[in-house]
Amino acid sequence: MKDVGILVLGHGSSLPYNKELVEALAQMIGKNHDGPVRTAYLNMNDPDIPAGLKSFEGTGVSKIVALPLFLAHGVHTREDIPRELGVDQNKRRGTVAVNGSDVEVVCAEPLGVDECIAALACKRAEEALR
Amino acid sequence: MKDVGILVLGHGSSLPYNKELVEALAQMIGKNHDGPVRTAYLNMNDPDIPAGLKSFEGTGVSKIVALPLFLAHGVHTREDIPRELGVDQNKRRGTVAVNGSDVEVVCAEPLGVDECIAALACKRAEEALR
Repeated sequence: MKDVGILVLGHGSSLPYNKELVEALAQMIGKNHDGPVRTAYLNMNDPDIPAGLKSFEGTGVSKIVALPLFLAHGVHTREDIPRELGVDQNKRRGTVAVNGSDVEVVCAEPLGVDECIAALACKRAEEALR
Repeated sequence: MKDVGILVLGHGSSLPYNKELVEALAQMIGKNHDGPVRTAYLNMNDPDIPAGLKSFEGTGVSKIVALPLFLAHGVHTREDIPRELGVDQNKRRGTVAVNGSDVEVVCAEPLGVDECIAALACKRAEEALR
C-alpha cells in the first residue's frame, strides 16, 4: 500500500476547529497506512483540494484515495469534491496528472451511519449532563 | 434520565442523506437513553430547531441535551445552534419555555477527535480500494 496515498478532506471553517480535527484524525489514519497521508479543505482553509493533490508530488503514488471527513453524502461529497479533484461526478473516480504522471483518484464514501458514531454521541450527551 | 430529552441536531441538506443519517443515529442513540429523543436541523430540513424544542411538549422533560451531529466546532455549533435554541452563545446553555414550562437546555460538544472516527475513516478508504 506504499504506492497508495490518502488525501484526507475536511470541510474547512473560518474557526480553527475543523482544521485541528482533520489534522489530528489524519495523523491517526497515518498510523494505519503505509503510504503518504495528506490533508486538504473544500473551503476556507489551506491547502485547497488541487494543492492537496499536488502535495503528493515526489511520493511516487500510483493511486490516491480522497477520504472525506464528512458524516453523510451531500452536495459537498457528490458534486464539489469530485469537481475540485477533477474526476467524474458520477463515477467519483478518474485519472489526474500529479507532477506529470497519471495517478488514479478514487473518492471514498463519507463516514456514514455506524454504531461507533452513536456511541460517541451518547458519550458527548453524558458529558454535557455532568 | 427519563426526565432528560436528547435533541439530536443535524446540519440539514438539499439531498436526503444528512437527514437519513441523523434519523438512523438518533434511533441508535434512543436505544441507550431512557428519555425522549428527537431530531432537528439547522438548515433545509424539518423540523427546524425551534420546532425540535417544541416536539418535547407533553414529555415532561426538565432538561434537554442539544446533541450536535457535527464533527468539530465551528460557526454552526458556536453561534447558530445556541441562537436557534435561544440560549447564551458563550455558556451554550440556558432556560427555554416548552409548553409554558421552564426547561434547561444544554449544548453537548460535537463528536470531536476520537480513534473510532479514524478507524471508521480507514475502513472507508479500504472499501474504496476494493
